Amino acid sequence: MKLWQKDKTALAAVEKFTVGKDREMDLYLAPFDVLGSLAHTKMLASVGLLPTEDLDMLQKELKNIYRDIQAGNFTLEDGVEDVHSQVELLLTQRLGESGKKIHSGRSRNDQVLVDVKLFLRHELEEMVKEVKTLFDLLQAKSEEYKSYLLPGYTHLQIAMPSSFGLWFGAYAEGLVDDLEVLRGAYNVVNKNPLGSAAGYGSSFPLNRTMTTELLGFEAMNYNVVYAQMGRGKTEKIVSFALAGIASTLAKMAMDACLFMNQNFGFISFPDELTTGSSIMPHKKNPDVWELIRSHCNKLQALPNEIAMMITNLPSGYHRDLQLLKENLFPAFQTLRDCLQMTGLMLSNIRIKEGILEDEKYKYLFSVEVVNNLVLAGTPFREAYKQVGMDIEAGTFVADTNIQHTHEGSIGNLQTAQIADLMNKVLADFNFEKVHNAVSALLK
Amino acid sequence: MKLWQKDKTALAAVEKFTVGKDREMDLYLAPFDVLGSLAHTKMLASVGLLPTEDLDMLQKELKNIYRDIQAGNFTLEDGVEDVHSQVELLLTQRLGESGKKIHSGRSRNDQVLVDVKLFLRHELEEMVKEVKTLFDLLQAKSEEYKSYLLPGYTHLQIAMPSSFGLWFGAYAEGLVDDLEVLRGAYNVVNKNPLGSAAGYGSSFPLNRTMTTELLGFEAMNYNVVYAQMGRGKTEKIVSFALAGIASTLAKMAMDACLFMNQNFGFISFPDELTTGSSIMPHKKNPDVWELIRSHCNKLQALPNEIAMMITNLPSGYHRDLQLLKENLFPAFQTLRDCLQMTGLMLSNIRIKEGILEDEKYKYLFSVEVVNNLVLAGTPFREAYKQVGMDIEAGTFVADTNIQHTHEGSIGNLQTAQIADLMNKVLADFNFEKVHNAVSALLK
Amino acid sequence: MKLWQKDKTALAAVEKFTVGKDREMDLYLAPFDVLGSLAHTKMLASVGLLPTEDLDMLQKELKNIYRDIQAGNFTLEDGVEDVHSQVELLLTQRLGESGKKIHSGRSRNDQVLVDVKLFLRHELEEMVKEVKTLFDLLQAKSEEYKSYLLPGYTHLQIAMPSSFGLWFGAYAEGLVDDLEVLRGAYNVVNKNPLGSAAGYGSSFPLNRTMTTELLGFEAMNYNVVYAQMGRGKTEKIVSFALAGIASTLAKMAMDACLFMNQNFGFISFPDELTTGSSIMPHKKNPDVWELIRSHCNKLQALPNEIAMMITNLPSGYHRDLQLLKENLFPAFQTLRDCLQMTGLMLSNIRIKEGILEDEKYKYLFSVEVVNNLVLAGTPFREAYKQVGMDIEAGTFVADTNIQHTHEGSIGNLQTAQIADLMNKVLADFNFEKVHNAVSALLK
Amino acid sequence: MKLWQKDKTALAAVEKFTVGKDREMDLYLAPFDVLGSLAHTKMLASVGLLPTEDLDMLQKELKNIYRDIQAGNFTLEDGVEDVHSQVELLLTQRLGESGKKIHSGRSRNDQVLVDVKLFLRHELEEMVKEVKTLFDLLQAKSEEYKSYLLPGYTHLQIAMPSSFGLWFGAYAEGLVDDLEVLRGAYNVVNKNPLGSAAGYGSSFPLNRTMTTELLGFEAMNYNVVYAQMGRGKTEKIVSFALAGIASTLAKMAMDACLFMNQNFGFISFPDELTTGSSIMPHKKNPDVWELIRSHCNKLQALPNEIAMMITNLPSGYHRDLQLLKENLFPAFQTLRDCLQMTGLMLSNIRIKEGILEDEKYKYLFSVEVVNNLVLAGTPFREAYKQVGMDIEAGTFVADTNIQHTHEGSIGNLQTAQIADLMNKVLADFNFEKVHNAVSALLK
Repeated sequence: MKLWQKDKTALAAVEKFTVGKDREMDLYLAPFDVLGSLAHTKMLASVGLLPTEDLDMLQKELKNIYRDIQAGNFTLEDGVEDVHSQVELLLTQRLGESGKKIHSGRSRNDQVLVDVKLFLRHELEEMVKEVKTLFDLLQAKSEEYKSYLLPGYTHLQIAMPSSFGLWFGAYAEGLVDDLEVLRGAYNVVNKNPLGSAAGYGSSFPLNRTMTTELLGFEAMNYNVVYAQMGRGKTEKIVSFALAGIASTLAKMAMDACLFMNQNFGFISFPDELTTGSSIMPHKKNPDVWELIRSHCNKLQALPNEIAMMITNLPSGYHRDLQLLKENLFPAFQTLRDCLQMTGLMLSNIRIKEGILEDEKYKYLFSVEVVNNLVLAGTPFREAYKQVGMDIEAGTFVADTNIQHTHEGSIGNLQTAQIADLMNKVLADFNFEKVHNAVSALLK
Repeated sequence: MKLWQKDKTALAAVEKFTVGKDREMDLYLAPFDVLGSLAHTKMLASVGLLPTEDLDMLQKELKNIYRDIQAGNFTLEDGVEDVHSQVELLLTQRLGESGKKIHSGRSRNDQVLVDVKLFLRHELEEMVKEVKTLFDLLQAKSEEYKSYLLPGYTHLQIAMPSSFGLWFGAYAEGLVDDLEVLRGAYNVVNKNPLGSAAGYGSSFPLNRTMTTELLGFEAMNYNVVYAQMGRGKTEKIVSFALAGIASTLAKMAMDACLFMNQNFGFISFPDELTTGSSIMPHKKNPDVWELIRSHCNKLQALPNEIAMMITNLPSGYHRDLQLLKENLFPAFQTLRDCLQMTGLMLSNIRIKEGILEDEKYKYLFSVEVVNNLVLAGTPFREAYKQVGMDIEAGTFVADTNIQHTHEGSIGNLQTAQIADLMNKVLADFNFEKVHNAVSALLK
Repeated sequence: MKLWQKDKTALAAVEKFTVGKDREMDLYLAPFDVLGSLAHTKMLASVGLLPTEDLDMLQKELKNIYRDIQAGNFTLEDGVEDVHSQVELLLTQRLGESGKKIHSGRSRNDQVLVDVKLFLRHELEEMVKEVKTLFDLLQAKSEEYKSYLLPGYTHLQIAMPSSFGLWFGAYAEGLVDDLEVLRGAYNVVNKNPLGSAAGYGSSFPLNRTMTTELLGFEAMNYNVVYAQMGRGKTEKIVSFALAGIASTLAKMAMDACLFMNQNFGFISFPDELTTGSSIMPHKKNPDVWELIRSHCNKLQALPNEIAMMITNLPSGYHRDLQLLKENLFPAFQTLRDCLQMTGLMLSNIRIKEGILEDEKYKYLFSVEVVNNLVLAGTPFREAYKQVGMDIEAGTFVADTNIQHTHEGSIGNLQTAQIADLMNKVLADFNFEKVHNAVSALLK
Repeated sequence: MKLWQKDKTALAAVEKFTVGKDREMDLYLAPFDVLGSLAHTKMLASVGLLPTEDLDMLQKELKNIYRDIQAGNFTLEDGVEDVHSQVELLLTQRLGESGKKIHSGRSRNDQVLVDVKLFLRHELEEMVKEVKTLFDLLQAKSEEYKSYLLPGYTHLQIAMPSSFGLWFGAYAEGLVDDLEVLRGAYNVVNKNPLGSAAGYGSSFPLNRTMTTELLGFEAMNYNVVYAQMGRGKTEKIVSFALAGIASTLAKMAMDACLFMNQNFGFISFPDELTTGSSIMPHKKNPDVWELIRSHCNKLQALPNEIAMMITNLPSGYHRDLQLLKENLFPAFQTLRDCLQMTGLMLSNIRIKEGILEDEKYKYLFSVEVVNNLVLAGTPFREAYKQVGMDIEAGTFVADTNIQHTHEGSIGNLQTAQIADLMNKVLADFNFEKVHNAVSALLK
C-alpha cells in the first residue's frame, strides 16, 4: 500500500498511527480519571469557577461512572480516542452543558499526569502487598527448612556449608531492599501534578493545595514546568523499582533451575508444576521458573527502554510520552504474575534431605577444620596451609559438626530481625492516608 | 487471590502463565510452519521414513492449510497451545494416522527454529522493500529541493550553509548503511536449523542438505548445538538491524520537529497531518513525527532487551526464549508503519523559500569569505583571524554566492552515486532464490 | 602473540588479565578498608579472638595508615594485587605476627563488601552535598529571574508563556525527586555485610551487631547469603540514583544548547565559557553543556551495564563482580564534575530581556484570551472556537498582561515550599550518626 | 571547592573538563591521522591548493612522524589538546609556514571522522584475525574430542547425548555468524568521510574521489551531511559487532564455569590457570572464565551506551561525540584479551572421559530407544508413551550405542563445511586492497 497521497486512506492511517494502543491503555486509567475529576470539580466550585448545582450533578454522575468502571461496565465507544473524552462524553450525554464544564482550568496534559500518578500509586500499593505475601512465605520456608543443609558455592565451586534456611531467608531479605527502592519511587509518585495545565500553569485562580489534599497526595509537584517534566521521569523511576523486585525473582529462578538440574538434584516439584518434552519421555522441565526468569529479565530492561525514549527531549510536553503507557502499564500485572507463580512454586517445593552426606561435598568443611585449628591456637595462615596439604594428600577428614552461631548464619537466621526490617519499610508507606482520601472523594 | 494451594485454580493459572501470548504470537508463524512441514515431509519420504502415499496426502493438505492461512481462515482453536499443534490437529482430523507422522525426526525445538528463521527472512525482505521505497522518495526530494538553502548547524550553532538537497540526501544515504547492517543480519537468518531436533540432533538418517535446498536457505546451521544456540542470538542481530533503520528515522523526526518549531520555521505540513491542542487554539503539533521518534527510540532499546533476556544462559534450549516472540514479532509492523508515516509526511512537506535571506544567518558565510581569501593567497590562519576581527567589529560582509562543487556538496549531490551504493547492497540479497524455492514447495 | 603455550609469558598474561584495573580501583577503597579493619579488630578482641596487646598495636598502626592515606602517602607496592593485601603487608612489616591476625573471622569477600559499602556511603553523602549546592543556586536564579518571561513550548511548538523563574525552579525541584531516589539507594547501602565471610558465615563467634554499631551502619545485612547477594545489586541501585541526577542535568544541558542556538537566542555565556571553531571564525559553541549532556547520558546507561553483567548469575560470589568497580567508582567524580560545571555555567548565564516582545510569540497568549472569555461567562469550548477563528483570520490580539497566581505558576513560584521539600528529604539522611561513628573509630 | 566564580581556577577546571581523556584517547588515532594527512596533502597539491615543494616536504616529514609513532616515539606535549594539533605542531616546528598548510580544505570534524574510520578499519581487521585464530583452535578441539560424550541439556535438564565435538564446534560456527555481522560493520566503516569539512562541505575544489582511492576505501560517504551523521552511528554499529563476538565468548565462559563445577565435573584446568581462596584451602576457581564473561557482558552493554549518548541529537556535529572514544577505543583491546584468554584456557583444557557411564545419565538415551521403536515400525506417539511408562516403572534400559549420522550431528560434525562457511565470510573482506593503499601512501 502506498501512503504518499493525501487521501482518506492516508488520513485513516494517520489516525490509526496516532491513536495507537491508547484506547486499550487508557482503560487502566479510567477509575483514576474519575477520581481526578471528582477532586478537580470540587476545587473549581470552591474558587467560584463551577456553580454548586453543576458540582452536585457532576459529583453524582462521576460516582456513577466510577461504579460502572469497578463493575466492569465501562468501555471506550468507537471513535472516542481516549478515556478522558469518554468520561466527558458520558457526562455531557447525561448532564448536557454541565458535563462540558469539567475541562475548565485543566489541560489534557495535567489530566493525564494526575491519572498516571494515581494509577501508579495504586499499583505500587498492590505490588507492596504481593511482595509482602511472598516475603512471609519465604520467611516461613526459611524456618521450616533451617536444618536442611546445602552446599554453598563461590565461583560456582563447592565452598562452604549453607542451608535452605539461609537460601530462602536471603531472598526474603532481598525483598526488603527492593522495597527500600520502591519506597523512593512511591515518594516521587505521590505528589500532585494537577493544576499544571499544559506545563505552564493557568490564569485561573486554581487551588492546587486543595486538590492535593482531596486526592491524598503527600505533597505537590509545585513548579508547573517540573510537574510536566516528571512525566517519563516518574515512569522510569517506577520501572526501576519493579526491575529490582524482578531481578530478585530472576535470580531465585536461576538458582531453582540449577538446583532442579539432575547434577545438583537439590529440589523438585510435583509433576503438575513441571512440563514434559515432545520427544523426550523422561523430562520434567522447570518451565514456570524459566518463564519467571525471562519475564523478570525483560522487566529489567524496562528502565533503559524508557530512558532511551525520553533522553535528550528538551523540557515541555512531547507526544513521545504517550508510548510509555504501553511499556509500563502491563508490567505491573506481569510482575504480580511472577510473584504469584514464585509463591506457588515455593509452596510446593520438595527439598532433598541429607544432601551433604555425599562424599563430593566433604571439602565444604575445610574452613571449619581450619577454624578449629585456629581456635585451638594455630595461626590462621599455618592452619590454612596444613589443611591444604591434607586435601592434596587425600588425608583430609571433614568435621561435619558445624556450629555457626553469629547473626545471620546457619544456626542463627535472625528471621525476626529481618521481619523487623521489612515492617520498618512498610510502616513508611502511609497507605491509610490515601485510602481515607479516596473514600472521602467517593462517599 | 492466593495461589499457594495446589488446586484447579492454581493449575489453570500455571497454564495461563506458561502459554502466555504464544497463541497470539504463533499466528505470525503459521504460513512458515506449513512451509517447514512441506519440506520436512518431502525429506522424510526421500529417506524412507514416510510412505509415498502419506506424503502425497500430507502435501496436499498442507497446501490447503497454507491457502487458508493466506486467506485469513486460520485460527488456533480453544485449548490448542501453539500453531504447530493446530496444524497437526488439522492434519489428523483430515487424514487420521498419516497426520501424526509429520513429527518424526523433528522436535518442537527445531520446528520453532525453522519457523522463526523463515518468518524473519520474509519480514526482512519486506523491510528492505519499504526502506527502498522511502529511499527513492528521499532521493527525489533531495533533487527537487537541491536549491533550497538551509542553515547548517554544528553544536546547534549556526555554522555553514546547507541545503534541503543535502538534508534529504543524507537520510537517503543513511538508509544504505542501515541496509549494510541488515544484510549481515539476513545472512545470519538465511541458514537452515531444521534437523537439529532438540539441539542435539537425531538418530534418524535425516537429509538436512535436502531441506536446506527445498526451503531456499543459503546455507545450513551445521552443528546441531549451534543451531539451537542461534535462537535469541538471531533475534538480537535482527533487532539491531531494525534498530539501525529506526535510529535513522528517529533522527529525521527530531530534525523535523526542530525545523517545524516556529523559531526555525523551515518546514510545515498540511493541517490534516498536524494536531491541535485541547486548550491552545493556535497549535499545529507534529504528533506524527513525535510518535515516529518515540516508536523508533523504543525499537532502539530492543537489542538490549533481548540481550538482557538471554545473557548468561548456558548452552541448550531454555523456555526463556519463548518470550522473545513478543518483543520482536510486532516490531516489524511498527517499523513499517514508521517508514510509511515518514514517507507520508515527507510527501506532503512544505519547505520555506529564501530561509538564508534572514540577517541572522549571515555568519554562515564566514568560512566562504575565509576560503576566498585563502584562494587569493592569504594563509589560512591569517584569513581566519581577519574575518574573525571583522565579525567582532561588526564590519563583516557575507558573500552569499556559494560555489560548492566537490563530491557530495551542495552543488554536487551525487544522487546517482548514492543510488548506485544502494543498488549494490540490494543486489547482494538473493531474494529470487528464496521466491523460487517457496514457489516450488507450494506448487 | 600466541598465548596457547603454558609458559611464563602466558602466565604473566593471565596475571595481568585477572588483576586488571584492580590496583587502580582499590585506591578508592583504601581509607574504608582501614575503617573496616579498625572495627573488625575491636570486635575480634571483644570475643576473645585477638589478645588485647595485639589489638592496641593494630589499632595504632591502622590509624597511622589511615593518616597516610588521607595525606596521599599510600600506594600499592609492585606485586601487591589489592588494597587489602597492601594494608596487611604494612601491618606485618611493622608489627610482625600481630599483623597477620586481622584476617581471622573474615574472608576477602566480606572485607570487599564492607569496603564497598563504606565507600558508597561516603560518596553518596558527598553527592548529596553537591546536589544541594546546585539546588541552592537554581533556587536563587529562579528568584532572580522570576520576571524574565520565556516562551513555553509543547511538542516544541510555541504554547504558553513561561519564565526563567519557572525554568530554573523546575530543575531545582527535579533535584528533590532525584534525592528521593538516592535516599532509597542510601538505605540499601547503609547496612553492614561484615561477618558474612565468603557468603556463608563463619564458625567463629563473631559479634556482627558490634561491628554494625562501630561502623555507624543503620542496620545489618543479616542473612549471610543475602549479604553476598547484595554485591552488584547495591552497585546497580546506586548507579540508578546517579543516573537520575544525571538525567536532570542532561535535560537542562539540552535546553541550554537549544536556548543558546541563535534561532532561540534566549541565553548566552561569556566567551571564556564557550569555544570557537577551527574553520568558522564566528562560532561560540556550548561545549561545556554538550559534554555535561554526554557524560550524563553515558551515566544513564550505567544501571543497564551493571544489570547486564550480573543477570543470571546464580547466588554466591563470582569473580565477575570485580569489574563493577571500574564502572561505578569513577562515576562519582564524573557526576560531581558535571554538577560543578553546571553550577559554573549557570553562575555566569546571561539572560535576554523582553524575549516575548517579538511578534512571533503573540500566540503564546491565546489561552489567556480564552480564559478571560471564560471568566467573563463564555463556555470554554465556545471561547476556544472564537479565539481559534481570530487566529485563522489574523485578527487575534494578544493580552500580554498575564496573571498567574496559583501555586507553582509564573506569579507564585513557591520557592520556599520547594526548599521545604528538599529539607525534608535531607533530614532523612542521618549523616551525623555516621560521622560520629567514624570519628569514634579513628579517635 | 566552589567553582562559581569566573576566575583562573574555574577556567582551568573548564579546560580540564573539556579536554577530558582526549589526550589519552587520541594516541589511538595518531598513525591514522598521519595517513589521512598524507592523502589529503597529495590531493591538495593535485588540485593546485598546495605547491609541489610544500607537498614534498610535508610528505617526507609526515612519514618521519609515522615512523616515530610506530617506534613508540610519539607523545602529546603538555598543553597540546589533541593529536591533530600535535602533528601540526611538529610539522610547523620542522617546516615553518609549509606545516600550516595542511589544514586547508579540511575541518577538525572531517579530520577526526577519517581518523576514526581508519582506526576502526584497522582494529576490525585485527579482530578478524584473532577470531580466526580462536576459530581454528575450536575446530581442532572439536575434532580432537569428537568421541568424548557429554550430556546434552534442555531447560538445564538432562536431555539427549551430546559431545565435546559438538560443543567446541558450536562455538566455532557461532564465530562465523559473528563475522557475518562484523562484515556488515566493516562495510559501513570502510567509506571515506574526508572532504565533508564541518559537515557541510567546502568551497574548495576538493577531489574526494582521489582521497578515497589513496586511503584504500571501498567507497565514499558521499553526502557531506551524512558523512558527519555517520559519527556515533558507525561506533554503535562497530560496538554491536564486538558485542556479538563477546556474547559468544561469554556463553562459552558460562558453560565452562558450569562444567568445572564439581556437580558436573566435565572439565578441569591446570592449577596455574585457576585460583585459590583466602579462606578455603581446597578451591580451584575459574577466575579467568569469570572475567572473560564479565568483560564480555560489559561489552554487550556498549551498543546501548552509545545509543543513549547519541539518541535525539539533531543532525550536525555535537561535542557529545567526543566521549564515544572512551567507550569504544579500549574495547578492542579488551575483546582481544578475552579472545586470547579463551584460547589459552581451551588449549589447556582437560576433559573427563566416560562421563555418560554414570547411571544418572541413562535417560539421555530415551529418545534413541523411542526412535529405534519407530524405525522398527511403532508409531511415534505410541513409542513415546511406552518408553515413558518404562521410565516411570523403573524398567527403562538405555541403548547407549548411538548412531547419529546426519549433517552436524555427533557422528558427522561437518568440520570442513563449517570451515568453508568461515572462509567464505573471510573472502568477502578485501584487506589486500587496504594494505596496498596504505603501503603506497607510506612508500
